[in-house]
Amino acid sequence: MTATTLMPGQASATTSAGVTTITAPTQLVETRLESYAYRRFGSGVAPPLVCLQHFTGTLDNWDYAVTDPLARGREVILFESAGLGRSTGAVSDTILAMTTHFLAFADALGLTRVDLLGFSLGGMVAQQAALERPSLIRKMLLVGTAPEGGEDIMHLEKPELRTILEDRSLTGYQVLTKLFFTPSAPSQAAGQAFASRLAARTEDREPVSGPMVAQAQIAAFRAWERVDGERFAKLRRITHPCLVVNGVLDQMIPVRNSYMLAEHLPNAMLLTYPDAGHGSLYQFHDSFVRQAELFLDA
Amino acid sequence: MTATTLMPGQASATTSAGVTTITAPTQLVETRLESYAYRRFGSGVAPPLVCLQHFTGTLDNWDYAVTDPLARGREVILFESAGLGRSTGAVSDTILAMTTHFLAFADALGLTRVDLLGFSLGGMVAQQAALERPSLIRKMLLVGTAPEGGEDIMHLEKPELRTILEDRSLTGYQVLTKLFFTPSAPSQAAGQAFASRLAARTEDREPVSGPMVAQAQIAAFRAWERVDGERFAKLRRITHPCLVVNGVLDQMIPVRNSYMLAEHLPNAMLLTYPDAGHGSLYQFHDSFVRQAELFLDA
Repeated sequence: MTATTLMPGQASATTSAGVTTITAPTQLVETRLESYAYRRFGSGVAPPLVCLQHFTGTLDNWDYAVTDPLARGREVILFESAGLGRSTGAVSDTILAMTTHFLAFADALGLTRVDLLGFSLGGMVAQQAALERPSLIRKMLLVGTAPEGGEDIMHLEKPELRTILEDRSLTGYQVLTKLFFTPSAPSQAAGQAFASRLAARTEDREPVSGPMVAQAQIAAFRAWERVDGERFAKLRRITHPCLVVNGVLDQMIPVRNSYMLAEHLPNAMLLTYPDAGHGSLYQFHDSFVRQAELFLDA
Repeated sequence: MTATTLMPGQASATTSAGVTTITAPTQLVETRLESYAYRRFGSGVAPPLVCLQHFTGTLDNWDYAVTDPLARGREVILFESAGLGRSTGAVSDTILAMTTHFLAFADALGLTRVDLLGFSLGGMVAQQAALERPSLIRKMLLVGTAPEGGEDIMHLEKPELRTILEDRSLTGYQVLTKLFFTPSAPSQAAGQAFASRLAARTEDREPVSGPMVAQAQIAAFRAWERVDGERFAKLRRITHPCLVVNGVLDQMIPVRNSYMLAEHLPNAMLLTYPDAGHGSLYQFHDSFVRQAELFLDA
């Protein structure tokens, strides 16, 4: 596994056109904090869309059914935070620290105006980034995520989730198929298709996350659940247009967290999908892409 | 005021092409139950879209910013239930009785497959119709409405609503502007534009609803709030594709009723709008029309 290292301010070593989620080479950018692994592909007139990943996910966990069509209208940049994949450093155990890594990355790439796709944990980093550096961000897609002070965020010890995580018969992406999709036949079929798509990239893959990654990120979730001061007051300061998306049967971050976001963010539309869980964007990828394009291009 | 009377089975006296929400003549169709006033306009390959009206609303309460663009892809049929406008008979005091009137109307017009736009009270009739005659309906838009067993449905005695309803300085559509939109400047501006659009039809208008209409329909709301048996069990039988829409600040039928619909209808997408009340479809009419077209044409 090799990765191209890019120094701060240096132009991309790889042109984006014609490159896809599967073929985009992993690049590294050195910053004032760490070296971050990332991939970039696509082109278009819209601001770049930076994708912020879910719990324990690496660059390899982005589904091309979503990221490739979106890359037809803009550049898509997949970001890997400190301590994941080939990014250096320790895994952050707070959303704020993860956000600091993201901002260092954005600065090193010279990004001045981006859209964000924050999925789950990544949606929390997106919200924090909107508070820390509002001018960097134009619009945000917040999928399967929760506000600070949200409820029942990634409690893997719950029976519904523990049963899946302790099932020795499930290997590789089959765990994600159970975690991200509902038990119904259509949802499980969509989950199998999702797993096949993730497996389609066979070269230049990232190291899989280990238990230390999970432990730090779970600590970040526990801190994110805490209510300090007036609940949801910070959301009023996030005036960016947002599209909040979730499945109504999400067991990992229940949909009521999306309701909280849509009710307290001043400029957020909410979209929910039926018979869908945490991975609603991958189950309904055609609809999600159409909605994301409508929202981003409006 | 004259209205064309159409006997059951007779072809429409008026061709729809070129006619709009403002110019569509009021027609009457005699049925086995009552004579119903209605208007029809538009054309296209999609099934007709039958529009079911809100509390005390008549045919004149449909906003052409929504109904005219939708009529470019399909025929739009505005239905007036018994005892409203020039429709004969007594105003129903149950959703089931209103549904019986709608089905008699659909039969008299020879409709065999329709889409429904049910707004508020009309959304309840749409749900009941889907239970009574599932084969008649292809897809449903359920806007600002609630399931049977829903909560806080049209309690006009609430301080937030009573203040508006008892304000003698508000005349005509200014009451709707306050009831259907939020107090924010952008929402109130959208409300003023809405009121202007409703006023644009100056001829062949319907008689305005009086207190007897309100009284019967309020009785229907009270009955609809009751939970008989397992709550929301009936929703599982409504397998039609649904798009549930509401404003997050709806005071008349709070948005949590839309959450209940989206969580219990097996095939419903939910869309909510920020800084919007009961009239979210009229505040965000461009977005609503685009979403309705996406949904109906999918």
